Amino acid sequence: MPASPSADRAGVWLVGARGSVATTVVAGCAALTAGLHPPTGLVTETAVCAGSGLPPLTALVFGGHDTTDCPLPKRAEQLAAGGVLPPGLPSAVAAELAAADREIRPGGPLPGDTRDADELITVFASDIQDFVYRHRLARAVVVNVASTEPAPTGTELPPSSLYAAAALRAGCPYVNFTPSTGLHHPALAAPLAASGLPYAGRDGKTGQTLLRAVLGPMFAQRALAVRAWSGTNLLGGGDGAALADPAAAAAKNAGKERVLADTLGAAPEGEVHIDDVPVLGDWKTAWDHVAFDGFLGTRMVLQTIWQGCDSALAAPLVLDLARFTARAHQIGLSGPLSDLGFYFKDPVGDGPAALGEQYAALVAFAGRLAGAAR
Amino acid sequence: MPASPSADRAGVWLVGARGSVATTVVAGCAALTAGLHPPTGLVTETAVCAGSGLPPLTALVFGGHDTTDCPLPKRAEQLAAGGVLPPGLPSAVAAELAAADREIRPGGPLPGDTRDADELITVFASDIQDFVYRHRLARAVVVNVASTEPAPTGTELPPSSLYAAAALRAGCPYVNFTPSTGLHHPALAAPLAASGLPYAGRDGKTGQTLLRAVLGPMFAQRALAVRAWSGTNLLGGGDGAALADPAAAAAKNAGKERVLADTLGAAPEGEVHIDDVPVLGDWKTAWDHVAFDGFLGTRMVLQTIWQGCDSALAAPLVLDLARFTARAHQIGLSGPLSDLGFYFKDPVGDGPAALGEQYAALVAFAGRLAGAAR
Amino acid sequence: MPASPSADRAGVWLVGARGSVATTVVAGCAALTAGLHPPTGLVTETAVCAGSGLPPLTALVFGGHDTTDCPLPKRAEQLAAGGVLPPGLPSAVAAELAAADREIRPGGPLPGDTRDADELITVFASDIQDFVYRHRLARAVVVNVASTEPAPTGTELPPSSLYAAAALRAGCPYVNFTPSTGLHHPALAAPLAASGLPYAGRDGKTGQTLLRAVLGPMFAQRALAVRAWSGTNLLGGGDGAALADPAAAAAKNAGKERVLADTLGAAPEGEVHIDDVPVLGDWKTAWDHVAFDGFLGTRMVLQTIWQGCDSALAAPLVLDLARFTARAHQIGLSGPLSDLGFYFKDPVGDGPAALGEQYAALVAFAGRLAGAAR
Amino acid sequence: MPASPSADRAGVWLVGARGSVATTVVAGCAALTAGLHPPTGLVTETAVCAGSGLPPLTALVFGGHDTTDCPLPKRAEQLAAGGVLPPGLPSAVAAELAAADREIRPGGPLPGDTRDADELITVFASDIQDFVYRHRLARAVVVNVASTEPAPTGTELPPSSLYAAAALRAGCPYVNFTPSTGLHHPALAAPLAASGLPYAGRDGKTGQTLLRAVLGPMFAQRALAVRAWSGTNLLGGGDGAALADPAAAAAKNAGKERVLADTLGAAPEGEVHIDDVPVLGDWKTAWDHVAFDGFLGTRMVLQTIWQGCDSALAAPLVLDLARFTARAHQIGLSGPLSDLGFYFKDPVGDGPAALGEQYAALVAFAGRLAGAAR
Repeated sequence: MPASPSADRAGVWLVGARGSVATTVVAGCAALTAGLHPPTGLVTETAVCAGSGLPPLTALVFGGHDTTDCPLPKRAEQLAAGGVLPPGLPSAVAAELAAADREIRPGGPLPGDTRDADELITVFASDIQDFVYRHRLARAVVVNVASTEPAPTGTELPPSSLYAAAALRAGCPYVNFTPSTGLHHPALAAPLAASGLPYAGRDGKTGQTLLRAVLGPMFAQRALAVRAWSGTNLLGGGDGAALADPAAAAAKNAGKERVLADTLGAAPEGEVHIDDVPVLGDWKTAWDHVAFDGFLGTRMVLQTIWQGCDSALAAPLVLDLARFTARAHQIGLSGPLSDLGFYFKDPVGDGPAALGEQYAALVAFAGRLAGAAR
Repeated sequence: MPASPSADRAGVWLVGARGSVATTVVAGCAALTAGLHPPTGLVTETAVCAGSGLPPLTALVFGGHDTTDCPLPKRAEQLAAGGVLPPGLPSAVAAELAAADREIRPGGPLPGDTRDADELITVFASDIQDFVYRHRLARAVVVNVASTEPAPTGTELPPSSLYAAAALRAGCPYVNFTPSTGLHHPALAAPLAASGLPYAGRDGKTGQTLLRAVLGPMFAQRALAVRAWSGTNLLGGGDGAALADPAAAAAKNAGKERVLADTLGAAPEGEVHIDDVPVLGDWKTAWDHVAFDGFLGTRMVLQTIWQGCDSALAAPLVLDLARFTARAHQIGLSGPLSDLGFYFKDPVGDGPAALGEQYAALVAFAGRLAGAAR
Repeated sequence: MPASPSADRAGVWLVGARGSVATTVVAGCAALTAGLHPPTGLVTETAVCAGSGLPPLTALVFGGHDTTDCPLPKRAEQLAAGGVLPPGLPSAVAAELAAADREIRPGGPLPGDTRDADELITVFASDIQDFVYRHRLARAVVVNVASTEPAPTGTELPPSSLYAAAALRAGCPYVNFTPSTGLHHPALAAPLAASGLPYAGRDGKTGQTLLRAVLGPMFAQRALAVRAWSGTNLLGGGDGAALADPAAAAAKNAGKERVLADTLGAAPEGEVHIDDVPVLGDWKTAWDHVAFDGFLGTRMVLQTIWQGCDSALAAPLVLDLARFTARAHQIGLSGPLSDLGFYFKDPVGDGPAALGEQYAALVAFAGRLAGAAR
Repeated sequence: MPASPSADRAGVWLVGARGSVATTVVAGCAALTAGLHPPTGLVTETAVCAGSGLPPLTALVFGGHDTTDCPLPKRAEQLAAGGVLPPGLPSAVAAELAAADREIRPGGPLPGDTRDADELITVFASDIQDFVYRHRLARAVVVNVASTEPAPTGTELPPSSLYAAAALRAGCPYVNFTPSTGLHHPALAAPLAASGLPYAGRDGKTGQTLLRAVLGPMFAQRALAVRAWSGTNLLGGGDGAALADPAAAAAKNAGKERVLADTLGAAPEGEVHIDDVPVLGDWKTAWDHVAFDGFLGTRMVLQTIWQGCDSALAAPLVLDLARFTARAHQIGLSGPLSDLGFYFKDPVGDGPAALGEQYAALVAFAGRLAGAAR
């Protein structure tokens, strides 16, 4: 019997395990546990989570699914060349990258795949259970960090839902860090309810939407009338290419606009563009232009320019979410973890839309976790 | 006996009564009560203040002190020409501007003034009391909206403190919307304590600092490491000229930096400049550049550009503050109104620095006002 | 016999005569001749055009076609309310606006119009000739300032080409200030060649493209490698709505990208968006993001934000073009006026793409005009 | 006897030889000659300079003076860590860095230095002559890339002038890439005139001023009325610290404002700030805000944000200048090389201020060099 909750080893099963975010998660966790960097960006390493019984970073074990082959150590080198990871990091954590790489199983469906949905779910669930078993893990959290998929048009389960179904079948809590369908498919409603598992999502709030979640409330609290909120995102990398697909971008943008509608009370005029600019690599620039009316209708303007590295913004949130969700599972929570809305554009469950209130909810949640029996 | 608290007429005594802010306050209040514009920018007209017993806008009567002569109707025409007030407004509210203009008394000390501090305080207090008496006001709130004065170097009372002392002597609550000394002078500590009056301040949070009060907490809540926060403000008008004085700018900037230190935990690198650019008139542009470190030390940047009209940003806050402070006086509150920190760069009393928490405090305060006996 | 070239009265026939640009042209010309404003924005009023024999502003007579009814004085009031024209201007030049309004004839084809292309051209040409005859004008220049029309898909003449054909039939030089087809239609090639008339176009270079025409050469001259140039335009007004049509936007964007390809040697990555944001009215914001590589491949970024009033940017160019083209016609020039490339995104004829070289060509052209016999 | 002009080996003597710019110059030249990078940023490697007889990059030999000790290979590692040089470059060109490092001689005066000006000049000149002699160089160009020094207040020669005097004494052409005094000292006027040497300067135009040199002319050519041009520069590194000294910043800013006054016809309102932000290292952000009036006085705004690496911007210009100046010396030119104004904020001699015209002058100069006998 483990001596304390934090002694449990918890698996983090990454769907999209060879992507930039997943690679940054694995490399970064190793760098932090080796003391190479301070834990910047992790709320779970701040004082408000002390005593919450979260699995420590050293207790996390990584694996996942992916449809591509490039080994994690090589992906890490590519990221370092693009400035996403510090220059020497890939070699410093080569062993941990290789270890995680050995735990990556083939995803799907691949082109020409003849397996039907149920067969794929079975294989995926078996992969996850095998991972848990071999590593004697207390539990594993499945986290979707794959590229955004287009909104599904038929009744067929899209890939993200196949993995989500596999998580349920394997008895694992699930976190959807993307706007893809995941558990939000009618066919999964019944198994989800029956599973009693906790889950969280969706679509990580990393940049432009993070800003909107604090600026929207500011305008509302000051009774200023936002008339138009327009935005453009430039990014390369896999995400840029995926979101150049209008159907995928539509899924993403719905979340961005929801934040405005929720915090302002109504959606203002204005569009959001996501441009694929391959030369920018993983670096993202988001420009927002907010036209608002002040006292007596005086027109004023706020513009913001956010220049960030998408994977570096996402990775600490993924670690936070995996830890919170593992602990929630440990203490027997089930259903939507609405207290994790701080991390998402389009949170499951009911909760506030303003970042400050979401943070307060998160802190309260951390406190409840601390007080819970194992 | 008045039928309800809101039937009380309340005076608003503006120090700097011929300035852009004061002119916008008077013209704007008249425009709102005439139904010419919706009450954009006034928190006191939103649902959270319904039932708080605040004096209605129709119950406000304006007067004040100023050292210049230009009549308010003419000032309003100047502001309309500069786009600060809507084109037709000065003529639409000419009567109300003229009425307020008749209640403006000479300020001081003027160059060559031979009156000493006590004589000036006596005259100012008498002006205020006479205003209250003639209009049969239930009370008057003195609000300092004069140009920022340099930080005082000796023990002498600076002008802002003379007016503050006059407010005390006249038994009026006081609001300092500027970074000037006002009540924060050692010589006023005893009379302030003895007065039992409520007061609020200081330095209205209208633009760049408003943004900082939501962006600072965002970085802190996300555990991102802000390394440098730099800013430049361009503005003309009287405020631009006043703040071109390094001593005056220093007073202003202290408040801006305090917001960062309070919300981030420590003051980052970076300077703040205030440039007088006369051709910009009352329009202010504030550029902020925030260099922060994310996960694994990855450097990222947020920039904001705020283009607003200073007087249009300040005026609704002044109306809100006058109404809240009048009501606080009515129900017998005394001392620093720390629940009004939402409005200030450098709030009196103890209170949170993050705008979201300040708003929550304000809403709670509005609730307490609602529950109070007259 | 007129005493000097400049004594000739020249007509300016505006296609889209009730639009924002046309209204600003008429009101502005009247304001300048009345001495109400200095001639900011008119190259033809600078020293380089002294002695070029251009028709003076006082010699310009305005008329045009439009499919809408709103009288010019009312349009001018609307523009003043939106800050496009100075507040008092519409009333100050009411007589000139009314005079131009009387010279506006119905455009077409209107919905349900049963007239075929040749009938419409005949009517339009007759309208123009009648205008010239009644005012005893030496000549009239037809200038297309109508909303951008979608790129034509068939062989039918689009409206802009009907007006252009009418200009040819009426013996009038033609300026296309828009990206619409105008004279660039195969069916007009023969009549254009036969006409011996000078013409200019197309698509006025007013904001984002103006910047690109100086920044593109800067990068090229410094041997810096532009890797991606992305842009977003926000604007309301009629132009915003017209350009929200992807087909119309495509025509516009082709010109913007041509400037980059011509000045950089090759088109970089990056898209251009034009968003219709109605609340911005005639005010346009253009954000450009340029990612470039410097020495040893170091990645750097330039961003520009241009906030301008579209009509106020266009109007002086229209006046310049009308005057240059009238003078070119007077001295017998024919064919494409490639020396006017300074004004256009996609200039007719051969000429440089860098603004500095285009300006030098314009100055040389002004010199040749000065030396020409009448 | 060398077979062709380009066979001559030319020395480049860098004052400030251990600084970021010098290190980037030496490392970059080695990288280019090794074929590791394309020659981005070097005009001298573009077609317009083919045949101009410039010394090839392979013919350049580096040395210089500095008052600090850190070896160039280590400086290069520091720059690579800060993203100024590509990660693997320092080791790839370690031999060339070490070779240049061996040619660096102690600068001065150091604190407590008892040598007078003439002694220092003698030592410095001797260092340079020794370098030329030992390497059998055809000539050496002395280039000042040291930190900006405060404007001198007395008659004493500031350090930059001691080095400039040493160049004259050693018979070497001189390039002042900084705003420091250099040859612009009354005491050097006579020896400069007597020397018959060519010289160029001053203050390299790398970022904000480069932009101003194309945007200023744009406004002027379009007859737009610039009313205020304000700017803020944020940078760390040695230059940030040096320019935090108001006296040094004053020298720098004079050049920036001169570009505006020269291209606009008059200096507009507005200030320029240079902030030392150490965490930014060698990365510089320059924000410019231009308020201008368009047609009928309509107020518009252009803002630019330039994010670049100072040393990477400067280094190719230094290489260009050394090569042009060496060739000028070879063919016997003397006095101010005003055709190199393209590179400077405050060019010597008479020449245009607009970048486009400066580029045309440079191209013409390259043509004259091509035609010159050796």
